[in-house]
Formats: sequence, C-alpha cells, structure tokens
Amino acid sequence: MLPIGDDAAVLNVDGQRQLVMTADLLVDGVHFPETTDPYAIGYKSLAVNLSDLAAMGAEPAWAVMTLSLPVAEPEWLSAFSAGFFTLAERFRVQLVGGDVARGPLSVGVHLTGMVPPGTALTRFQAQPGDDIYVSGSIGGAALGLMAYNHEGPFADEERIQLVAKLERPEPRVALGQRLRGIATAAIDLSDGLALDLQRLTQASQVSATVELAALPRHKLCAKYFPDQWEHALSGGDDYELCFTAPEAERDKLQSLSEELRLRITRVGSVGDSSGVEYISPDGGLYQPGLVPGYDHFADL
Amino acid sequence: MLPIGDDAAVLNVDGQRQLVMTADLLVDGVHFPETTDPYAIGYKSLAVNLSDLAAMGAEPAWAVMTLSLPVAEPEWLSAFSAGFFTLAERFRVQLVGGDVARGPLSVGVHLTGMVPPGTALTRFQAQPGDDIYVSGSIGGAALGLMAYNHEGPFADEERIQLVAKLERPEPRVALGQRLRGIATAAIDLSDGLALDLQRLTQASQVSATVELAALPRHKLCAKYFPDQWEHALSGGDDYELCFTAPEAERDKLQSLSEELRLRITRVGSVGDSSGVEYISPDGGLYQPGLVPGYDHFADL
Repeated sequence: MLPIGDDAAVLNVDGQRQLVMTADLLVDGVHFPETTDPYAIGYKSLAVNLSDLAAMGAEPAWAVMTLSLPVAEPEWLSAFSAGFFTLAERFRVQLVGGDVARGPLSVGVHLTGMVPPGTALTRFQAQPGDDIYVSGSIGGAALGLMAYNHEGPFADEERIQLVAKLERPEPRVALGQRLRGIATAAIDLSDGLALDLQRLTQASQVSATVELAALPRHKLCAKYFPDQWEHALSGGDDYELCFTAPEAERDKLQSLSEELRLRITRVGSVGDSSGVEYISPDGGLYQPGLVPGYDHFADL
Repeated sequence: MLPIGDDAAVLNVDGQRQLVMTADLLVDGVHFPETTDPYAIGYKSLAVNLSDLAAMGAEPAWAVMTLSLPVAEPEWLSAFSAGFFTLAERFRVQLVGGDVARGPLSVGVHLTGMVPPGTALTRFQAQPGDDIYVSGSIGGAALGLMAYNHEGPFADEERIQLVAKLERPEPRVALGQRLRGIATAAIDLSDGLALDLQRLTQASQVSATVELAALPRHKLCAKYFPDQWEHALSGGDDYELCFTAPEAERDKLQSLSEELRLRITRVGSVGDSSGVEYISPDGGLYQPGLVPGYDHFADL
C-alpha cells in the first residue's frame, strides 16, 4: 500500500482470491442516538461492515471511510478513532484511505474482503430440508435501546451490559469463514430475524418454519419478557448470523460451536413453499409484530 | 459479481493487477450549493473519484455508494441516478453495492480501479529537472461558481458554459493511464494548482517554479480577468491533472496531446530545493492568494 496522502491507495491482491465488497452508512439520529459515545460510533461503523463480510464468509482486508462531522473536536475524533481501530486491529483491517468533510455527523465505511473463488456464502442457495441456525443470542440489542433510553425494568448492571450489546456488537467473522462449504445460505441479522430470514428465503425461493421456543433469546429477554418475541424477531442490530445447512452437517456444526466457544442454535427448517412461519411454544402460529424505530431506507 | 441485494458483492480480480482505492464525500451546502441540480450531484460524486484514479494512472472498475438523503423523492433519485450512471457507463464503472439512509443530503462514493503492478502514478517521485504540466484548462470552475451565484460579467451563454465546468468536470481517465511510464508524479487539481502542486512537491521533496504566463487558464479567465491568477491557482474543482515528466518525454507528450485531443501545457519545472515559486509575466515573484469558499477539511 502507498502511504495515505496520495490520491488513492495501491493494494496487492492475491490472484487466487475473489474480492467481497460492502458498505454501510451510519447517520446521527437515525442509526444511533445523537448523544452516542464517539467510541461506540467508531466501533459500530466498522462492526456492521465486518458483519456483512462475515455473512459472506469473507476475510476482511481493507477499509475506506467517509466521515462527515460538524466540528473537528480532537477529543471526539480521538475516541471515535479508538473505537474504530480497536476493532480494525482485532480483525486485521487496514484503513487505506477516505475523505473527511464538514457536515452533519455521518460515517460511511466501505470494507473489502477476500474469499477463495466460488466459496462466498450467499443468500440464495438454501435448500428444502436444510436446518436453520442462529449464532449467539438475539434480542439483546433491542433491550439495549430500551436500556439506553432509561426504559425497562433492568438493574444497573444489566443496563450496562445491554447498552454494550447495542453499541458494540461482536461481528461473527471467524464463524462466517468456517461456514464456507458447510452453510448453504447466510445473512447477518441487522434488521431482525423476521425481516432478514424473509430476505434469505425470498432470495433462495424457499419457505421456512421457525420454533419460537428454540430461539436463542438474550437471557434478559427471557427473564423480563418471557412471552414477548418481538425483541428477538424484529429488534434488529444484533449482528448475529442466520444460516442454513443440510442435516448432514449437524455434527460438524456442534464441533465448530465448541471450538469457537460460540452458541450455534438450530431454530427451524427450510421448506419448499414460500414465506416464513413462526410456531409458538403452544404449537399455534405466531405473527411477528414490528418494533418501531427502524426507519432507515432499505439497502440498495 | 453477485446480484445487488446480498450482504456484499463478490468480484473477480485478475492476479496480474494491483488495486487502487479512493473515496470522496460530497456534502450538501459544503461541496455543492443546496439548490444544485441532482443530475450534477450524481455526476460529480463519481467524477471526483474518477479524477483521483486518473491521477494514479488507474483503470476504474467498481463503485460503492453511501447516500444519505432527507426524503426519497423519485424525481430527485431519477435525476441523480442519471447523472451518476451517465458517467459510470462512459468509464465502465460498475456500481456493486452501497447503503442508503435517511439523513441530511450527502453522497460518498468509493471507487476501486486497477493498474499493472508497480505502474501506479504517485505524488512522490518528481525529480529535479522534470517539466511540470497541466492538462486542459484551469480556473473555469471558479468562474463557474461565480456564474452559478449570478456574479461576474458573463454573457448568458458563457454563464451556462461555466456552470457546466463546475458541475460536470471531465475526469482525465484516459490521460492518466497513458501517463504510466512517462510521468514521474501526478496529482489531480481538486483544490487548485497552488495547494495541489505544493502537496506534490512536498511529497517528492522537491521545489517547483511555475510561469504564470504559461498557465492554460480558461479562456474566460483571460477574457474577463486578464491580470488575476487566483481563479486558476486557488479556485479548485477543475479536476485537471498536474504532472511532472523528464524533458526527454516532451515529444511523446506532444503526440499524446494530439492523440487524445487534449491540451497538455508545460507550465514550469522541478527544482532541488523546496516550495513553489510563481513567476509573473513581468518577471517578478507572485504570491498566490486564497479564494474563499473551500472550507472542507483536508483528506485523511
């Protein structure tokens, strides 16, 4: 790479790889509350992109940032940078360039990663009969937003833990790469399982059945809202992976879960019609409601 | 490439190329007036990035966009897209993904291009004794801003021509690629020759002497402001290339100029000290002043 400061960065690429590119934009007051800690903004701006690459099974490589901010306060920038680079170093992401301008606060990150040719995970190859899995736990980020807004019945320590879930999601980069050759389709849970699994089934032209009782809800969802499923289904911002895999891969996934020390939960199965059905613990059908507050436009 | 709509785009790259990455952010009211035609915003958002790749000698390939806008008006989006894709098609740029969010209007474009390994043009290899060149004409965009604001002595037709210079700069992509192996250093003129040539000389640790009389000023600069040099030196937004090349390349550059039907003007020479000197037509030293209105932060 050339030193930052030229018109562009020059990067070597191994001829045995395909590139995987993604971009996400975080806008003040839309994707995060206006009072958000700058460390969290820096962290999350990279985390959401890493999560996209994880869902493709890609290894992250280079980031480019476009940052618009009203004033260049050294303290703000320093905390923002600390959040970004903490994650960048952990996942060996190199910031190779960008542009900074005065304007309303927004952070655009474009991330490029790599996969061996033909191995990228996509949304469109789920097969009838496949199992459906979710990594980690879901619903914590939705409670995190409540906690951030001083709502909910949480104890102080729980509140801190939940806000961290919202502000510093853990992108499942290692899992994504290990799912190459195992998963038939994958998507990251940015908008909530209800919407994201719908996207996956539509892309694959299949249907899905999900058992609510099997969902790996965040433990505080189960503790405080035992009969509510919206936080887990429609809250979004959890950045776990949802993926499909043939039954024959169950043992391999069990071992992988142990090796990565990451919960991988089977939540349902793929069918050959269309739509997604949610089965209540009582055996009836459940219709997921929407959690308000996710009003950003759909991805391009 | 995978269809847009997955978590990320998957792209093939030839193992015989290096990647060249750049990003630029345009913010409403900072980089363009709030009343700007959406076609011009779409066009310019790509043009400024193409200009960066041109200055590196790179061939454009893939763009990713992050677009923040207050409301999704079909008419606005349609004109914006027309501006972007007109240029994308001309330069064979593929839009491979992006993110759209509600927020104050801003457009971030990240562009990736390619060069044969080791051939990228940089800012840091200008050599004492080299000639300094500027492509096309400069100063037109600064007059364009005046014309846009209904200032200046211009006739109606001139006004239209000048606003086009500001809104639809022509990135010198073909020139940049042909300068590989000829130019020793290059930069695109986004902030004006005074600032950009200073960047080039600093990066190369050389000095420069420029003859004002030799500058390829836009013809309306010479017509209406014969004794003023600020439009050409400090106005910015012209997106011409400034580059250095050994004396031995003069004939080759002459032929290239004819072949590309693009003016390439020798404006000075590289020295072995530091700083940039401007020589007036009367032989004295000239100190470039600043044109106000370029208050965006420096590039990262």
